[in-house]
Formats: sequence, C-alpha cells, structure tokens
Amino acid sequence: MKRKLLAASLVASVGAAFVGDALAQAKPEVLVKQRQAAMTLQGKYLGQIGGMLKGTVPYNPEIVARNASYLEVLTKMAWDGFDPSTRNEKNTKAKPEIYSQPEKFKAAAEAMQAEVAKLAAAAKARDQDAVKATFGNVAKACNDCHDNFREK
Amino acid sequence: MKRKLLAASLVASVGAAFVGDALAQAKPEVLVKQRQAAMTLQGKYLGQIGGMLKGTVPYNPEIVARNASYLEVLTKMAWDGFDPSTRNEKNTKAKPEIYSQPEKFKAAAEAMQAEVAKLAAAAKARDQDAVKATFGNVAKACNDCHDNFREK
Repeated sequence: MKRKLLAASLVASVGAAFVGDALAQAKPEVLVKQRQAAMTLQGKYLGQIGGMLKGTVPYNPEIVARNASYLEVLTKMAWDGFDPSTRNEKNTKAKPEIYSQPEKFKAAAEAMQAEVAKLAAAAKARDQDAVKATFGNVAKACNDCHDNFREK
Repeated sequence: MKRKLLAASLVASVGAAFVGDALAQAKPEVLVKQRQAAMTLQGKYLGQIGGMLKGTVPYNPEIVARNASYLEVLTKMAWDGFDPSTRNEKNTKAKPEIYSQPEKFKAAAEAMQAEVAKLAAAAKARDQDAVKATFGNVAKACNDCHDNFREK
C-alpha cells in the first residue's frame, strides 16, 4: 500500500514535469517538439557514422554498430508526431503533403526504416564496405523524404 | 566503384545536412540540442506510461513494453552531450555541478538507467503491478538527478 501511494504520488508529480503524458492528447506543439527530437537524434547517430566514413574521425566499428542499433529504434519514433493536429504549427518545416498524401509519407518512412535495418545488419557484422554502401542508401532515403515532405 | 562514388557523394551531401557528424567535434550548441532531444523523448515515452498508470488513457501493456524498451535505449543518449565545452551555453538548465561533480552526476545517471532496466523487465513480463512500482522508482531517479543538476 505504501509503495502504491508512493508510486501514485510520483506519477502525479513527475507526470506534470514530463510532456506527452497521454497518447492521444499531447498538444500539437509538444508533438512537433518530440518528432523534431527524434530527427535530431537520428542526425546525431547517423551523422557520426557519416563522419567516420568521410574520415573526419577514425572509423570505429563498435561505435558504428552501437549507433546503427540506436538508429533502428530512433527511426520508429517520429511518425506518430506527424498528427493532423500539428498542421498549423509554426515551428516546423513539415509540408502539408504529409497530411494530404499520408500513404506516400508512410511509404517513405518505411523505405528509410528498411534501409536502416540493412545498415544495422552491416554494422553488426562489422563489415565496413557494407556499412558504406548501406549508409548511402539510408542517406538517400532521408533525402528523398525530405525533398518531398520538408520545406527547404 | 560506382557504388562507392555514390556513397561518398551522399556522405558529403547528407553529412552537411546532419548535425554532429564527428564524435569529438560537435559544437556546444549542437551537443545541448542533442541532449535535450534525448530528454524530450525520455519524457515522451515515460510520460505515456505515466498517463496510463494515472488512468488518463487506458493501460496498454503492449505500448508500455514498447515504451520501456525504447527508454532502455534513450537513457543512454544524453550523457556525452554534457561536455565541459557546453558550460557557457545559454539555452540550458544544466547546473555547473555537472562539471564540478562528474562522478556524482555519472552515478545519478547510472542509478536512473538501473531503475529503467527494472521497469523494462516488468513491462516485458506484462506485470502491471511491477510496472507501477518500478515506474515510481524511475520517476524518483529522474527527479533526484534534476534536483541536483538542473535549474528549477
């Protein structure tokens, strides 16, 4: 009982501190912030791999494998944030086509996820050549979606 | 060769679009943005569980398990962003104690990760009572660290 009360009061106190404490009820500006956070972290971990492939920093197969495994999870996170309720938000480059062509947007997201899965497999196998090839396809999938669904 | 060129040119073009394309060379403002993104997503997925435990939305053990597995990964992401180079950044509530008491900060982060692992185990077992109890401990670990290392 004591434990239950503790948990309930913590839920109440922490719930207020955390954004998005309900699935369908998050405010549009919160959804935008959350989906942008997912994009930012995709950029962090994909960008680090890119830096290694470019030679900006030494290639480290352990970090590449870690980052690719993170990307497999991160690339699932942005999509529920593209809710029609966010259509009129200002701080976003999301194009209206996201909401007028949802099937096309979904297909673009899934194409990217499929390429990330291949990158993750290559990274897990510590196969640098395959990492390079699959990274290119991930980058292309990112760019394809940005070209169609993100303002320049 | 063609494939290699394609990859190289994509690395160049996409590399510019992604922030943080080198491990040690990310700019302080980028590190702040990335660590805040990790915190935002921790809030998203922990907050959704909190909402279900509060009854704001119906309890869904599948979503709880998914969110907890995301949290196990997300809670690894913020820490390398708390680099001393970010000490003088403005858009952050990070306290100087993070850099003056790094061992204490690290211990607080690890304590939270340990509680998240227990939450994830409970969620994976679809044990709602255990989810509630472990959620309380995760929330407490979040708050403990915020109390010591984040401005109000």
